[in-house]
Amino acid sequence: MDFKNLIFNDDKPKYVVLAEYIKEFIRKGEIEDGEKLPTIRSLVDEIDVNKATIISAYKKLEEEGYAVSKIGSGTFAKQRDFTRIIKRQYSRTFKKLSKDRIKDFIDFTGETTSAELFPIDEFKSVINEVLDRDGAEALIYRDSLGYEELRETIRRKFWNNSVSLSDILIVSGAQQGIDIVAKTIVNPNDNVIVEKPTYSGALSVFKSRRANIIEVGIEDDGVNLEELEKILKRNKIKLFYTMSYFQNPSGVTISKEKKEKLLLLAEKYDFYIVEDDYLSELIYDEKIEYIPIKKMDISEKVIYIKSFSKIFLPGIRLGYMISPKGLNDSLQLAKINTDISTSSLMQRVLQKYIDNDYWISHTRELTDVYRMRYECITKSIDTILKDKVSYVLTGGGLHLFVKIKTGRMDSVSLYNALKKENVLITPGVLFFNNGNDGLKYFRIGFSEVHCDKITYGIEIINKYI
Amino acid sequence: MDFKNLIFNDDKPKYVVLAEYIKEFIRKGEIEDGEKLPTIRSLVDEIDVNKATIISAYKKLEEEGYAVSKIGSGTFAKQRDFTRIIKRQYSRTFKKLSKDRIKDFIDFTGETTSAELFPIDEFKSVINEVLDRDGAEALIYRDSLGYEELRETIRRKFWNNSVSLSDILIVSGAQQGIDIVAKTIVNPNDNVIVEKPTYSGALSVFKSRRANIIEVGIEDDGVNLEELEKILKRNKIKLFYTMSYFQNPSGVTISKEKKEKLLLLAEKYDFYIVEDDYLSELIYDEKIEYIPIKKMDISEKVIYIKSFSKIFLPGIRLGYMISPKGLNDSLQLAKINTDISTSSLMQRVLQKYIDNDYWISHTRELTDVYRMRYECITKSIDTILKDKVSYVLTGGGLHLFVKIKTGRMDSVSLYNALKKENVLITPGVLFFNNGNDGLKYFRIGFSEVHCDKITYGIEIINKYI
Repeated sequence: MDFKNLIFNDDKPKYVVLAEYIKEFIRKGEIEDGEKLPTIRSLVDEIDVNKATIISAYKKLEEEGYAVSKIGSGTFAKQRDFTRIIKRQYSRTFKKLSKDRIKDFIDFTGETTSAELFPIDEFKSVINEVLDRDGAEALIYRDSLGYEELRETIRRKFWNNSVSLSDILIVSGAQQGIDIVAKTIVNPNDNVIVEKPTYSGALSVFKSRRANIIEVGIEDDGVNLEELEKILKRNKIKLFYTMSYFQNPSGVTISKEKKEKLLLLAEKYDFYIVEDDYLSELIYDEKIEYIPIKKMDISEKVIYIKSFSKIFLPGIRLGYMISPKGLNDSLQLAKINTDISTSSLMQRVLQKYIDNDYWISHTRELTDVYRMRYECITKSIDTILKDKVSYVLTGGGLHLFVKIKTGRMDSVSLYNALKKENVLITPGVLFFNNGNDGLKYFRIGFSEVHCDKITYGIEIINKYI
Repeated sequence: MDFKNLIFNDDKPKYVVLAEYIKEFIRKGEIEDGEKLPTIRSLVDEIDVNKATIISAYKKLEEEGYAVSKIGSGTFAKQRDFTRIIKRQYSRTFKKLSKDRIKDFIDFTGETTSAELFPIDEFKSVINEVLDRDGAEALIYRDSLGYEELRETIRRKFWNNSVSLSDILIVSGAQQGIDIVAKTIVNPNDNVIVEKPTYSGALSVFKSRRANIIEVGIEDDGVNLEELEKILKRNKIKLFYTMSYFQNPSGVTISKEKKEKLLLLAEKYDFYIVEDDYLSELIYDEKIEYIPIKKMDISEKVIYIKSFSKIFLPGIRLGYMISPKGLNDSLQLAKINTDISTSSLMQRVLQKYIDNDYWISHTRELTDVYRMRYECITKSIDTILKDKVSYVLTGGGLHLFVKIKTGRMDSVSLYNALKKENVLITPGVLFFNNGNDGLKYFRIGFSEVHCDKITYGIEIINKYI
């Protein structure tokens, strides 16, 4: 980087001009990601400005995400995430498509169960039962860990009483769980490991905490442990974020053997495993056994996050966490700072719903319906798209992650082309720290689409690949 | 600070030993708050360790809140907040007191309306109306800004259509609003101004974002503007957080004149005013006029946060924000990262509740009841405690902030003594950045206590002051 074209003027403060000048170099890639920026002292010598101006310029670059400073080492360039633009476009798509219009689409973007399958009558009867029983008390909160009876029901029905009541914390959905974990243990420039690819909502949270995100590849039986250990040997890691069943987006489920090894690594290298269990209820392949990593966690290294929103409709916003010993006070405090507590009425409704065994029967019904759609979509892809693509046979969950093997079509162009044909998919760029890595992938969710429409949608996709 | 007593051993890494050694100096006050710690280079010379060890030690101090680093300037000591301990005790009190036991207490800690006054039948009928009308659709979310009909109702009923629909964002209570604002515009070491004293939930959020918190005194007609401007002249400020009506805890309402001046300052010095409007519905003194700062905001400098939880029961967890132009995209993104969206069913229920004018009639009823309790408590204090204390005559809201004028009793000891007598108050230390400043104050809330019990409670307080 040279400064011969740097010209100050009266329109803008000097530090702004300097920051914009450096920003251009970073944007164009003439300063690379992670490259050290000139020291303050050397800049004072090279250009005619004082120290305060340079500090302000670097601070501005940091704020805008173009630089990161490390104590005792200096300031380093940081490439801005190019996927911001496509992310914004993607979320705007749904803002623009109104409720009615989206019905005309074949919508493969769904991540949750479909409204049409929700047992609204059972729900209504439970909510009235709760209001009759508790009155206005149902709308008060007392316990910031969450409604005690719900926590007891969770412990009894899902954990066979093997966890402490005080380690269970009710949250407003899994996304809030991730946010609370980040607030509690992730500080700026801490190292966080995620799977590659991973859930975009988790990436956003860690980025917003200004963590250094390190990606580790995922294989058909879970994260690549050799690659993981190499990184652990060289870096102090705060946490490893993983989805243990039907990972979003890859669809991969981690094997029992890898779970055991992962726990040993967590103990040896002293980091937390954040287990996001978002959809393990929907298992279609009977060979898949359900054992969350948390159940095997004897060293108190796993922070377990469970979403109820995927099964019990997203509008409910409910989930829970199980905290390792020693972390529950801090997690609870972060929860209070975030939104004080989760809707008390909904907690009571869910408690009754689970306790009445509606939960388990509803889950069984959903499994039957979605197993059929799963079989339908895998068959459609295998017969229509054939060798043009590859994907992991998940054996559960609500989506597949498809790799485009042939042709020059990337998933962002594919997404845009399909939108015009009223077919919606999720481009893979959303799931990688560096979006470019996801250009050959797309996610296809089958929860909102009936079988005949699945086949039709896949045929349209076939036209473009 | 000298290092003659610094001894390394094999039990702990060197950086841990060094960090703990320095921490002791900070704890004991031998290194003062804000004092610069030795440079890395000077430490390398003085003690026999390498640079990496010192960097790790400083990083550890930072993580634990004993130090803060500034780019280009070095690392500075930071006193830990002593009020943590009392805060923890205070929140544990409520964890331990079960629902049933707390009924035997005279509970002056309440910050919200009482369950006994909630119109549960109207609520029940509205919730059933919504479920009959929308079915499972009520449990789905589509719009991350919040349920559009609710946002339209808010605009029409509360803002006379004077704000844009796209600037209204539904949140899960005011606390979440503050958290989202902090995530969007506050970065580590940014300057944030709060009133002194202020709401402890806001303090916690800004601290957790690692902001520099600057307190400005509050007078009977609102924040001290001279003091504020002095700080603005010397520092770049990101935001000023204020509660415009019946500030928590002081009870102060900012005058119209001060609102105007404050807005001019915000424009001149380019900072945001975060207006937390948590309880303006409950006005007892007819001289008090309701004009939120946001209504006077022609320069798009006010981020308005409105809580519904204080009136419509806390368990509902609902509120909304009005964002200045240019900030709504970022605020929305932060909301998605925090918990994706707010309970869809509750939004629909609230929409109907407001639209049916239940909201306005409920607010009127509450005002009548609480005006009586307000008159009761001011009379009790004036006749029983007399000159021992002073407080602001708020003319509205649900609490008073009382200053102990005489005697050696501080509010933490008072809190502990009263607890044994089954009377609960909130010690003032919770509302100051440095808890010590609050030792002569306590907050007394009257929303959960009937008049006869108010008088009895004040008599018990009188025994200890």
